Amino acid sequence: MPAQAGTAEEKELATRAPCCGLYHQAVELVGTRWTGAILLVLMDGPLRFSEVRELVPEISDRLLSERMKELEAERIVERHVSDCGPVRVEYALTDKGRALEPTVRALKSWAHYWLPRQ
Amino acid sequence: MPAQAGTAEEKELATRAPCCGLYHQAVELVGTRWTGAILLVLMDGPLRFSEVRELVPEISDRLLSERMKELEAERIVERHVSDCGPVRVEYALTDKGRALEPTVRALKSWAHYWLPRQ
Repeated sequence: MPAQAGTAEEKELATRAPCCGLYHQAVELVGTRWTGAILLVLMDGPLRFSEVRELVPEISDRLLSERMKELEAERIVERHVSDCGPVRVEYALTDKGRALEPTVRALKSWAHYWLPRQ
Repeated sequence: MPAQAGTAEEKELATRAPCCGLYHQAVELVGTRWTGAILLVLMDGPLRFSEVRELVPEISDRLLSERMKELEAERIVERHVSDCGPVRVEYALTDKGRALEPTVRALKSWAHYWLPRQ
């Protein structure tokens, strides 16, 4: 059977926007295991490594360290080292990271309204 | 060295909200490979299986079918079968799925502003 070119359905589909690569890249990035959780706890301000681990239950040191490096490489998180007093290393969101706040807040609201509590 | 209980830093951390299980569940769900892309293309209205595949480039039939089943099980997507004329199966977002629109739109805007075009 020949392909049905130019049917009404095909014309209708042509008006629909395909999923774009940039959005796909973003959803894969934020959706990487634990990344969304790390972003949420950093939204309230900078934290030390051990503090992130405490606020994101169940994450291992190894995975947290890996995720932090990925987020630094993406320039979503930056590492601050205090240069006075005892050395203190903190992780903070960059402007690019902070710009994820509407996404994170919207998903959190959705989760609290629509997901069943266990 | 004994644990430093009750330091100023510990008190400060106690005021910070930990990542909650519901949000974590949501970010893992939407962040599952291809799920975010499928949700985006369904935001504009119901689609047939073959139409979703066309609008989400690179997804395989097997994976799309798996994701659709997961989204149906979560009651985010529902399958509509037309009962008149030739059988036509369409997938549509439920109210729970449509409620993800602010999240999806916010992430798309972020991606278009912050991610480099290749």
